[in-house]
Amino acid sequence: MNKINENPSTLKCNHEQNSSPCFIPAQRVLNLIGKKWSIQIINVLSNGNKVRYNNLRELLQRGWKKNKISDATLSARLIELTEEGILIRDIHPEIPPKVEYSLSEKGEKLSEVLQPLIDWTIKVCHE
Amino acid sequence: MNKINENPSTLKCNHEQNSSPCFIPAQRVLNLIGKKWSIQIINVLSNGNKVRYNNLRELLQRGWKKNKISDATLSARLIELTEEGILIRDIHPEIPPKVEYSLSEKGEKLSEVLQPLIDWTIKVCHE
Repeated sequence: MNKINENPSTLKCNHEQNSSPCFIPAQRVLNLIGKKWSIQIINVLSNGNKVRYNNLRELLQRGWKKNKISDATLSARLIELTEEGILIRDIHPEIPPKVEYSLSEKGEKLSEVLQPLIDWTIKVCHE
Repeated sequence: MNKINENPSTLKCNHEQNSSPCFIPAQRVLNLIGKKWSIQIINVLSNGNKVRYNNLRELLQRGWKKNKISDATLSARLIELTEEGILIRDIHPEIPPKVEYSLSEKGEKLSEVLQPLIDWTIKVCHE
């Protein structure tokens, strides 16, 4: 039985199972969350927070006087994280339309497994 | 007292403390380990393993028929990870010189805090 053909939606690499662990999905996730502002976005939206674009930009900017986030960068990150299934973009049919961003179930789990790494780097940075 | 001036070697960001957590070091580490083969290199060298270049390339290649690692990529990754203080490059004064790579204390700690993320992505990939 070929597990990959049974469930093509989970096909994420062409790795031969049983040979060694497959790091391709980890690498792809790390590559995305290693980009500027990704982990800050995930942090702001963690624990079920639903945030609109302008509010998100304001929250990200707190504590950073010199390091302004541009609309181009923030929009690019939101699109990439949504495409990877980490964020959910909720459009409420109002006039003007109300758009809210939140973490998907996958995003909440990612936020959880990322925490030890973030805690360690924050400790190393400020100790 | 300014902690940053007291210990310039730990200066890694210009973040205002007490405002919000600083994610810059995490982002820099994630950016580096999100590059091709970084986490595989860290995995092979974890738990005190000391490995020579050719042996490392061979170990990385196991289980991947189509995904060959090039010398240019492997060399670039080894240089970047060494510069970031994650790897140690030991040169033994022999003829010909014997060079061994291993994880630094920082690298071992990184490998440890990365594990929950890697375990989760492997699970998501193959379940």
